[in-house]
Amino acid sequence: MISQENYPSKVLKDAVEAISSLPGVGSRSALRLALHLLRQPAEKIHHFASSIDRLAEDVHYCRTCMMVSDGDECAICADQRRDHKTICVVESVRDVMSIEATGQYRGVYHVLGGIISPIGGVGPSDLTIRQLVDRVSADVEVILALSGDVEGETTSFYIYRQIEGSGCKVTTLARGLGFGDELEYADSLTLGRSIANRQVFKP
Amino acid sequence: MISQENYPSKVLKDAVEAISSLPGVGSRSALRLALHLLRQPAEKIHHFASSIDRLAEDVHYCRTCMMVSDGDECAICADQRRDHKTICVVESVRDVMSIEATGQYRGVYHVLGGIISPIGGVGPSDLTIRQLVDRVSADVEVILALSGDVEGETTSFYIYRQIEGSGCKVTTLARGLGFGDELEYADSLTLGRSIANRQVFKP
Repeated sequence: MISQENYPSKVLKDAVEAISSLPGVGSRSALRLALHLLRQPAEKIHHFASSIDRLAEDVHYCRTCMMVSDGDECAICADQRRDHKTICVVESVRDVMSIEATGQYRGVYHVLGGIISPIGGVGPSDLTIRQLVDRVSADVEVILALSGDVEGETTSFYIYRQIEGSGCKVTTLARGLGFGDELEYADSLTLGRSIANRQVFKP
Repeated sequence: MISQENYPSKVLKDAVEAISSLPGVGSRSALRLALHLLRQPAEKIHHFASSIDRLAEDVHYCRTCMMVSDGDECAICADQRRDHKTICVVESVRDVMSIEATGQYRGVYHVLGGIISPIGGVGPSDLTIRQLVDRVSADVEVILALSGDVEGETTSFYIYRQIEGSGCKVTTLARGLGFGDELEYADSLTLGRSIANRQVFKP
């Protein structure tokens, strides 16, 4: 309905194009967001733009776990009360935040920065697997907390082969029906594995 | 699931907060978008931020119709092939773009910059109604192309009272069933008005 030619302003068009480059934002939504910003006071627009701009240089990565951080060491790795002998391997920053939000985990992390994906052109050398191997020793437990799809399983297996020689303990997340899930809505793969990996009932 | 406290970086948190200030963007989507930007090369982030930043100062408004423009006069008002005696009054820039996209209109526009909304705290003086009154004379047709809800009708009526003394012709958009609409899915108000305002059948 709104074509590229009838943008009334080059500046507006540039902003819409930038916003619509974000994943999941179409050109109509981008226009709506750009016009929303345009109605804001100038200082609010500047603040918005500079908040984004600072992502380019002011975000650092923890030298140990590769987590996003404001300095060279993240708050989790710097925390001596945490268990530095348990390393949870995750794909992304978002996974760390999800696990932290559970409040159930007191170990540290290792952020791979992606997952091995031949189709996506991501190989082991694009991830922080070498840094993980350097961290691992015989007295460490490595929890492979990657997604349960083919790429996640492939990455888990690749990492396992890289670290098994160190004598460390390697574990993975429990998989099965979610708490509160109903059997009739579960997919058959999950249900089948939940039966195969059944646990002792603890009343 | 992801709380405010466990953001791993102040810079990331600021960016997420800025993005989630946009309408319809929740904090989870904002985090996803911020992490997407974070993975981009620095120059792409700078380009994105500066595209937004330029909205603050580099967008101008046409002195005649109040449309977004790169200069003091928009391309439509500057176009002498258009009919400057027909003024289509719309709420926003987006409406102009929607009407332009139809390719059916050869007149000019007047952008109100909003709609009278007592609940939203928008009164007639917040809109460009005074500038419209200054543009109108007896040989002009004013098309009130505002939305069909209570606020749109109120605004249309207010504008009509302001300009009727000039002797101009005042029209409004045709309302009725959409082309291709099925009767059984039409709301009763639209259907009722479509019957009341029935038109001569032109085979």
